[in-house]
Amino acid sequence: MSLRGLTRGRQLVIRSHTPTRGFSLAKNNDTRRERVVILGSGWAGYGFARTLDPAKYERVIISPRSYFVFTPLLASTAVGTLEFRSILEPVRRLPGNVGFYQGWADDIDLNRKTIRVETNAAEEAASKTILPGPSPPPSETAGLEKTASAPAKSAKGDLIDISYDKLVIACGAYSQTFGIEGVREHAHFLRDIGDARRIRLRVLSLFEQCSYPRGSDHLSDADKRQLLHFAIVGGGPTGIEFAAELHDLIRDDLAPMYPDLVPLVSITVYDVAPKVLPMFDQALSKYAMDTFARQSIRVKTEHHLQRLRPADGEFGRRHGALKIKIAEYGDNEVGAGLVVWSTGLMANPLMAKLAAQELASPGPNPPTPTTATSPHHLLLDPRTGGIVTDAYLRARTSTTTPSSKSPSSSSSSNNNSILEDVYVIGDCAVLKNQPQTALPQTAQVASQQASHLAKRLNAGGAPAVAAKPFRFRNWGTLTYLGGWKAIHQSEADQLRGWVAWVVWRGAYLTKSMSVRNKLLVPVYWMVSWLFGRGISRF
Amino acid sequence: MSLRGLTRGRQLVIRSHTPTRGFSLAKNNDTRRERVVILGSGWAGYGFARTLDPAKYERVIISPRSYFVFTPLLASTAVGTLEFRSILEPVRRLPGNVGFYQGWADDIDLNRKTIRVETNAAEEAASKTILPGPSPPPSETAGLEKTASAPAKSAKGDLIDISYDKLVIACGAYSQTFGIEGVREHAHFLRDIGDARRIRLRVLSLFEQCSYPRGSDHLSDADKRQLLHFAIVGGGPTGIEFAAELHDLIRDDLAPMYPDLVPLVSITVYDVAPKVLPMFDQALSKYAMDTFARQSIRVKTEHHLQRLRPADGEFGRRHGALKIKIAEYGDNEVGAGLVVWSTGLMANPLMAKLAAQELASPGPNPPTPTTATSPHHLLLDPRTGGIVTDAYLRARTSTTTPSSKSPSSSSSSNNNSILEDVYVIGDCAVLKNQPQTALPQTAQVASQQASHLAKRLNAGGAPAVAAKPFRFRNWGTLTYLGGWKAIHQSEADQLRGWVAWVVWRGAYLTKSMSVRNKLLVPVYWMVSWLFGRGISRF
Repeated sequence: MSLRGLTRGRQLVIRSHTPTRGFSLAKNNDTRRERVVILGSGWAGYGFARTLDPAKYERVIISPRSYFVFTPLLASTAVGTLEFRSILEPVRRLPGNVGFYQGWADDIDLNRKTIRVETNAAEEAASKTILPGPSPPPSETAGLEKTASAPAKSAKGDLIDISYDKLVIACGAYSQTFGIEGVREHAHFLRDIGDARRIRLRVLSLFEQCSYPRGSDHLSDADKRQLLHFAIVGGGPTGIEFAAELHDLIRDDLAPMYPDLVPLVSITVYDVAPKVLPMFDQALSKYAMDTFARQSIRVKTEHHLQRLRPADGEFGRRHGALKIKIAEYGDNEVGAGLVVWSTGLMANPLMAKLAAQELASPGPNPPTPTTATSPHHLLLDPRTGGIVTDAYLRARTSTTTPSSKSPSSSSSSNNNSILEDVYVIGDCAVLKNQPQTALPQTAQVASQQASHLAKRLNAGGAPAVAAKPFRFRNWGTLTYLGGWKAIHQSEADQLRGWVAWVVWRGAYLTKSMSVRNKLLVPVYWMVSWLFGRGISRF
Repeated sequence: MSLRGLTRGRQLVIRSHTPTRGFSLAKNNDTRRERVVILGSGWAGYGFARTLDPAKYERVIISPRSYFVFTPLLASTAVGTLEFRSILEPVRRLPGNVGFYQGWADDIDLNRKTIRVETNAAEEAASKTILPGPSPPPSETAGLEKTASAPAKSAKGDLIDISYDKLVIACGAYSQTFGIEGVREHAHFLRDIGDARRIRLRVLSLFEQCSYPRGSDHLSDADKRQLLHFAIVGGGPTGIEFAAELHDLIRDDLAPMYPDLVPLVSITVYDVAPKVLPMFDQALSKYAMDTFARQSIRVKTEHHLQRLRPADGEFGRRHGALKIKIAEYGDNEVGAGLVVWSTGLMANPLMAKLAAQELASPGPNPPTPTTATSPHHLLLDPRTGGIVTDAYLRARTSTTTPSSKSPSSSSSSNNNSILEDVYVIGDCAVLKNQPQTALPQTAQVASQQASHLAKRLNAGGAPAVAAKPFRFRNWGTLTYLGGWKAIHQSEADQLRGWVAWVVWRGAYLTKSMSVRNKLLVPVYWMVSWLFGRGISRF
């Protein structure tokens, strides 16, 4: 981290002081490093790229976004405690020259070792939670050619081909909407920085909308009560922490500015399960519920959301009021001004596309002649739709086609074949064949896998490292509950209250990635504590 | 500025510790303070509200945005040196309880002392440069009723009425596009924080788009040269400072990341006048031009932009490439990836609307019986379209109707009539009847007028203050030129180079509004200097 300012005497047209990077495919020959292409820039992909030795490998990251998001602090940015940029690490700022192409891996030719990338850099703010495209409407499937009347929006990006020597698939999973009507269109998600920005704008805008004096044309108290109802669907750590942070924002910053509105505000967490925070044991989750009850955050377990729609008339159109249909309430829809969706994950559609591809050579390890003749595919986990890996995070293959859905067919893949040079880590990987139970799809798992794989590749053929399979170590789980309280649970201990809060902040601070953000995050915490959170809307 | 954190033990449902504010019109009777309604939250409106004594007046601000923007640092946020929030002051954070309604003054009944406000809080990010609406297309004026097929976008906000005892009109001026084709649709402006955000996204996105390897489907070097041409129209301080900051961003932060693209980048400032920075004397403006020449920023004076349009085909649609038609170049259009428009100002349409209103009583000062019988209006300045004020910043009236456009008619307004309780400050005011020449439409003038008027109202009838007319004191002008150099000119001295740069930073720092931002701005300067500017796109 040099003092960059000292080099500022230069002019615009400078020569690069750094060695030429692998910007184009033709330049791959100056050093005979293997090219490792990494799909994704999340906990798995960014963590891997950060640990892989640039002296030994040429690193190329392909990701639809230009940065890594430090997700545990996303809810803090959504309420203005932290600046958005303080939890982002730009991919291009990785030390040691990294290649980066912003875009989607549209398809991968696993035999020719080439990735077809659909670029998305022209999309000026590519920072939203990604949802799989809806099934095409019947008119499109009927084969009617559409006129070019609606360009720009529907136009796909340019396509480019990137070749690899080794491939690390770390492109994560999509948000699961369970096909519930209206969720895709009307709910907010909270997985990327653009989501946090939109939630922040929405919360602040709702208070402003409800602050006008009564007039002929204006909102009743009942209307305001609906708009100031904040509904969070999903009682996992993300949903709970967002509810807690939102409560802090309203109590500390908005209540003094909008005192008349405080009695109309409510926050509800809905979950289908009988309890929230299932990863915590009974005592801690009871503590969480008691804390929420004192903060007037309602928790509604065993509630099933069936539909989300805009309210009728101007109230829905102009104010964006929503109506939530919940199975347990029958036809009595619940009004809300904001619905934050944080339930589960579903597989990235690329996984199924890859598994459908017929592999040229089985690449068995050790070679198994029986599989060489039958068709050969990547092995998908039937439950999550992720790619199955061995204990070294290598993609496993099977002789069964993914279309044969009989459960017995998956047993034929027990021959431990792998696809050479293809690794899968993070939410899109399913590690089988190890004593531990299925790993959760969390940042912790992704981060540990990334680090394990990068160290293994850095070591090259060194037998001591190469023989060591991946083992997940549970560092414990922390959840912030608002009002400077948190709960922490690991195998060794349990913490609650402000002690856990200190651990919570301390843990995030030391794990926060760059020196820049390590400095800035505590500055923001202090500034927000002294002067309040940022409340300007832009 | 109390330690807010100490009061955090409270719950969501709290009672306000502050006295009840004037939130609704009915609550105006608890203290018999006069209600001063301020239109606008810029240098004039926010500055006035900040200085007016809340113990003596009830302050109510009406503005389409919820914050004040510290405009001299806007260009710094557009290139990521500073965080957006560090140059914003939320109106609701003004000390001493301020009333705020987010919206437009749609019309004012000057006789009944009531403002019709069109609310815009439902517009989630109301942070763009405001342009007057285009003239309605013929199909709309033909009186055809439109079906409700396109709601939301065209729906106006709710309308509310706000009454005042005294009115301060400080709603500024609009950006002047001179009716040039395509400017409104395709140029970027730089007057509000949302503009800075969009410019920042666009610049970073253009570099990313040009960084893909050559492929069948991709951009030629000639294409990239067009996309990486940044055109700034208008050679005033705003345009020059943006060009300088953009140059710094590219040289310091983007060049090391995209070394292959550096030879393709260019920055051009276009102006119709024979020289840029007309407010600086010859030696300083020559110094500025020499500095720019060394930085490879081209300055094209006496160039007239005639049209702005998207480039043909995919290049325009997908990449947003623009074509600039310049009179001096004939049919050879110039390609650009970004056009920033910073030329002149035009009157807010509200001014003409107000001047068209017939006033009930002439409100002369002293009474002049001759004007009482003839129709009576606010007096507009024919050149700028602003409202003419006397030396006490009170709105002047005239017996001529604004529709009679003969130049001689304005001379009949020399009777010095004023409209009681209506003040006009900032860009929408034209101060006449004082020895000085017409004042420029700058932050400095607006800020001094705001402070003068507030102090005068705070003093009540105290004759020493009340008799003192407004006098503009020129504090000098600073313009940043990039590469840690600036120029500064005042009546007393001239500075250039890094000394002026120190003055430039120091001046902004001490004028920066709140303690919060006084702390944060130097932190960002240091962080950007050490670690580079923020380059993540979101």
